[in-house]
Amino acid sequence: MAKLPLLSVSLNLLLLFHGCLARSSNFEQFQNECQINKLESIEPVTRVKSEAGFTEWWNPNSQQLMCAAVAVLRETVEPQGLVLPSFSNTNQLVHIIKGSGVLGMILPGCPATFQDSQHQGRRQDQHQKIQRFREGDVIVLPAGVPHWFYNDANQPFVTVAFLHLGNSVNQLDRNPRKFHLAGNPEEEQKKLQRLQQQKQGITESEQEEEEEKHKQCTNSLCFNPEYLAQAFNVDEDVIRKIQEQGKSGTIIRVKNLQFIEPPRVQHEEGRRGSMGGDNGVYCAMKMKENIAEPELADIFNPQAGRITTLNSFKLPLLSHLGMSAERGVLFNKGGLVPQWSDAHRIFYMVKGRARFQVVNQNGESVFDDYVEQGQLLTVPQNFAFMKRAGNEGAEWVSFYTNDNAKNTPMAGVGSYMQGVPEEVVAAAYQISREEAREVKFNNQNNFFFTSSSRPQPRAEEA
Amino acid sequence: MAKLPLLSVSLNLLLLFHGCLARSSNFEQFQNECQINKLESIEPVTRVKSEAGFTEWWNPNSQQLMCAAVAVLRETVEPQGLVLPSFSNTNQLVHIIKGSGVLGMILPGCPATFQDSQHQGRRQDQHQKIQRFREGDVIVLPAGVPHWFYNDANQPFVTVAFLHLGNSVNQLDRNPRKFHLAGNPEEEQKKLQRLQQQKQGITESEQEEEEEKHKQCTNSLCFNPEYLAQAFNVDEDVIRKIQEQGKSGTIIRVKNLQFIEPPRVQHEEGRRGSMGGDNGVYCAMKMKENIAEPELADIFNPQAGRITTLNSFKLPLLSHLGMSAERGVLFNKGGLVPQWSDAHRIFYMVKGRARFQVVNQNGESVFDDYVEQGQLLTVPQNFAFMKRAGNEGAEWVSFYTNDNAKNTPMAGVGSYMQGVPEEVVAAAYQISREEAREVKFNNQNNFFFTSSSRPQPRAEEA
Amino acid sequence: MAKLPLLSVSLNLLLLFHGCLARSSNFEQFQNECQINKLESIEPVTRVKSEAGFTEWWNPNSQQLMCAAVAVLRETVEPQGLVLPSFSNTNQLVHIIKGSGVLGMILPGCPATFQDSQHQGRRQDQHQKIQRFREGDVIVLPAGVPHWFYNDANQPFVTVAFLHLGNSVNQLDRNPRKFHLAGNPEEEQKKLQRLQQQKQGITESEQEEEEEKHKQCTNSLCFNPEYLAQAFNVDEDVIRKIQEQGKSGTIIRVKNLQFIEPPRVQHEEGRRGSMGGDNGVYCAMKMKENIAEPELADIFNPQAGRITTLNSFKLPLLSHLGMSAERGVLFNKGGLVPQWSDAHRIFYMVKGRARFQVVNQNGESVFDDYVEQGQLLTVPQNFAFMKRAGNEGAEWVSFYTNDNAKNTPMAGVGSYMQGVPEEVVAAAYQISREEAREVKFNNQNNFFFTSSSRPQPRAEEA
Repeated sequence: MAKLPLLSVSLNLLLLFHGCLARSSNFEQFQNECQINKLESIEPVTRVKSEAGFTEWWNPNSQQLMCAAVAVLRETVEPQGLVLPSFSNTNQLVHIIKGSGVLGMILPGCPATFQDSQHQGRRQDQHQKIQRFREGDVIVLPAGVPHWFYNDANQPFVTVAFLHLGNSVNQLDRNPRKFHLAGNPEEEQKKLQRLQQQKQGITESEQEEEEEKHKQCTNSLCFNPEYLAQAFNVDEDVIRKIQEQGKSGTIIRVKNLQFIEPPRVQHEEGRRGSMGGDNGVYCAMKMKENIAEPELADIFNPQAGRITTLNSFKLPLLSHLGMSAERGVLFNKGGLVPQWSDAHRIFYMVKGRARFQVVNQNGESVFDDYVEQGQLLTVPQNFAFMKRAGNEGAEWVSFYTNDNAKNTPMAGVGSYMQGVPEEVVAAAYQISREEAREVKFNNQNNFFFTSSSRPQPRAEEA
Repeated sequence: MAKLPLLSVSLNLLLLFHGCLARSSNFEQFQNECQINKLESIEPVTRVKSEAGFTEWWNPNSQQLMCAAVAVLRETVEPQGLVLPSFSNTNQLVHIIKGSGVLGMILPGCPATFQDSQHQGRRQDQHQKIQRFREGDVIVLPAGVPHWFYNDANQPFVTVAFLHLGNSVNQLDRNPRKFHLAGNPEEEQKKLQRLQQQKQGITESEQEEEEEKHKQCTNSLCFNPEYLAQAFNVDEDVIRKIQEQGKSGTIIRVKNLQFIEPPRVQHEEGRRGSMGGDNGVYCAMKMKENIAEPELADIFNPQAGRITTLNSFKLPLLSHLGMSAERGVLFNKGGLVPQWSDAHRIFYMVKGRARFQVVNQNGESVFDDYVEQGQLLTVPQNFAFMKRAGNEGAEWVSFYTNDNAKNTPMAGVGSYMQGVPEEVVAAAYQISREEAREVKFNNQNNFFFTSSSRPQPRAEEA
Repeated sequence: MAKLPLLSVSLNLLLLFHGCLARSSNFEQFQNECQINKLESIEPVTRVKSEAGFTEWWNPNSQQLMCAAVAVLRETVEPQGLVLPSFSNTNQLVHIIKGSGVLGMILPGCPATFQDSQHQGRRQDQHQKIQRFREGDVIVLPAGVPHWFYNDANQPFVTVAFLHLGNSVNQLDRNPRKFHLAGNPEEEQKKLQRLQQQKQGITESEQEEEEEKHKQCTNSLCFNPEYLAQAFNVDEDVIRKIQEQGKSGTIIRVKNLQFIEPPRVQHEEGRRGSMGGDNGVYCAMKMKENIAEPELADIFNPQAGRITTLNSFKLPLLSHLGMSAERGVLFNKGGLVPQWSDAHRIFYMVKGRARFQVVNQNGESVFDDYVEQGQLLTVPQNFAFMKRAGNEGAEWVSFYTNDNAKNTPMAGVGSYMQGVPEEVVAAAYQISREEAREVKFNNQNNFFFTSSSRPQPRAEEA
């Protein structure tokens, strides 16, 4: 009779223990989140369908994203899709993978500088600046700044957004958050919460309980309707409409949305200098830049590829964000020499595929595989990597967790190897001075290498 | 016979487990300290009586203060009370809630610029600058700078101090610390330690054991008396007197304390420009500013209230501290529109009461209640809040965890809603364009709303 | 029959629990890593022998180093020893304790500005700047910058390196890491990993398993040889030689290594102004400075000692590193007055010994003992300390975790005590005004005190 209670106590303990260990090991993960022995290229783990598009999050618990303190999401927006206003507690860089559209950002304290012309006597609208974006743009979204997107083109647009949780601008913890100002983000919030609870080791049954609650209002406007009516100085039934949850997520379909806009010209570049409507530096900041146009390349090698960097020297706002970006192309079998960066580097493969090798501080190869289109790979700070494109070439964007990342190549012009005296190279690697000279100077490219650059005469490679 | 040992083992395990889980859950709290589903307005949890006043600490383990990485204490000092010299490892903002007095700060490396006139031949005193403070002042206390206060008025003064543990200037852990240079802070230290041990899950019996020890010397002068005598070049019995612990805490009563001081004029403002006695920018920095005088208001609405902001543009030293402050008044039933801030915001209710509503990123109302005089409420970064005063009005001070907090209002002039095109508002909230226009423009106030601004004609509200 | 399984379950639980608690307590250590009740002077815990020298690490798990977020290592390099190229994910200050030699740093993006003169027609070498160092130099090694050292003198040189894990430049976790670019660092890596695993509570059996693996290649050049051959544009067998692991650690012996160098003059100071070979500010930055020469002293007292400070005003690069240093000498029985610093301060005793006393915020004496030659002691931020040399004097170097540490003395010229009005001193410490005046003004030295400065006439000291 005494045995059964004991048994149950012990089993309970077992369960409790399991939880305890699970949680403790999460702690270790946090303390040692960059003790990386193995990397994987990763794809999104959740997908939330909205009326006019869908949102996909990468797992914020994946070791590589925890190490980089970054969260990543991809959004696909159909024509006539309106991405409802939201903001985040982190700085974001948003890269336009495909398509084009219109963007509104509401900067606090800045005036509504886009004003309507006369509309037969009725009250005019006015709102903050609207910007057009297109494939290859990087859009800078500072923490706390609400923004919305609209697809007024006839094909979907796709964005990849990088949220930098590790920057000190984020004063909350390292869980990714979106503060929605409209729409019904409930499904997205639940999926995000579930991922966060997994990180905390909360079991599924607890989760389900949590999810039983169904809410009437799920965004940042969920205040007391009476007070809100006073704050907006409108009838309470307008507020109740505003608070009513649609069934459609955070991207809704709206036909032919109109807003005030200056006459459009072919290239945004044409619009620079015409900012007379804005008053003040902050309100008129440049918030986006294209990095995909071939003629913008900073490094170009007709055999191997090209790279365009976006740092705080090109877009000064980035110095406040502590992030930068790069878009690169490798032509057929072109490669990047081994190198390391003083920041975390998160690759997203836009087109094609490339084989990456990543090595940690113990010389362990923590990744040696292809990264395919739509996949993501983090190369942590100071980890060395190299890559080579497949036959079809490769096009990627990478995001850095500082505003002016320095990459140190190991081979080629300006490399580590070229900076070391010949005799030191020979002694360090136990090779002849002739070989040391080859290692230092044979690759005359900057960052790139080409498979065709040298005949491979050795028998065992045939 | 075998059963009893087993039972005891299991029970021990149960106890051990309990500890384990308790500690683990603290870990989660740290990892997710801003996963806030519920807020409370909070009052101090400890009170330490000194000879001439008392010190009250808010619980540094409360989730809201851990999320904001802030510690808060309130000090009440009777007439003739001397708050003995101390310093902290964190930057502090001290707000004078009531009363007036004298403040000394000793800036390292700065000369003793206040010099005595001749006193019939005996050696003159000299010391660093003395400053007078009064109700409504914010005093900036950088980390590591020793300071003392004296009440030479005929009523008590009350201060509320905010210690920013989260700023990188603090290189120790996130436990609040005060380094006392005189007096007997033993009781305060013990109470603070007990709170810290609760955070670590250390049980009461362990605590009591710890507290058995009674110390002869409890402040930062507890060095070897022989060496100290050499360092000060005085007799050892002077050192022993210095190290003797009084019984009176950290605020002692001293009659009619005298120090060197320039002739007093009515307003401190009159003293600006007369800093010829200081040499160098650092030693002559402005370290305080009043924010309670009505004529200093930055935002003023005769129906609703006024707000005075103190940021690094007004007090440049704040840019090194990463903190700012604001004092505000709401008149009878006036309100603040829903808004969010890019910093944590810690409200302290100075007078009256106001009803706050706070909403998190999931649209959950995490607080909907009155905050009463003397209570504190944290609104974490990017959480949205609104508030409305009761019949008696409300006066508060709030502290921000950056040096120039940006608040984004959702309604009224310069709001999020005004920055979004009318058609986007209509589409996002599924309301008519007419209603969208009302929502955008009906409240013509900046940050404020008034209950009287609009008739409430709807029957169900009667 | 049912009892045995129960017993085993319980015992397993016990073991599991043990692990759980051990790990949790490590968590507390992290949360409260500066709750220091007891300090110890510490010596290195690991020693790795290389062909031409050895490397010693202090335990990165020691509470004081975890509190300061610093790792420390000492390297002894025999004549003809080449410290193979490596870099780190943290900023480093390296102090030359003894000896002299040659240093190469490879700054990314900077040209190879040291060019060979004609060597009878064969291809010339070129590499980045080489610098000579000598005893007393502080060398600044920014994160990610590869560097090598060579001993071309006829006596060993000894360096102590401080790695600042807590600076935000380090985006990885707080485990110390070295990224080796050549040589066989396997033994060092294993010893470092073992220390890190101890921190994580991983048991020995797990460790041993881990160590079974033997690797062919252990440094940052461990990429696929085929790709690497393409990247360097050399034969794969050159790559295979490069990747072959020697048996000799990270310091190898190389006779009479030659590199391009400007003509040497007696003092490096003579070389300033002759940097015409460098192009651009970044590539020509000053990266080292001597702090041991007596004539460089910032504070000098012929009875007590001297102190030379190296901060960002002397070496501007330090402002990017968030570190500074100081070298000091105490003559026979000279002392430093009680003081605190706004940064962590890590003392390394270069010569002689001194008695330190360190006091925490509760007035507890956490250290009161001699620090001997070759030992290290951390005085955490804002903890107060004083010290006095023994008969033989003492010479130390200390490293600070900010770029311009402010030390506040409690006694002597410019001290806290001098900044406080005489009457406040008298009231705070319950002494007479006469005694207060003595305490304020009797020590007329700056930071120093001397045992001989005052006769000790009191009977009980005889």
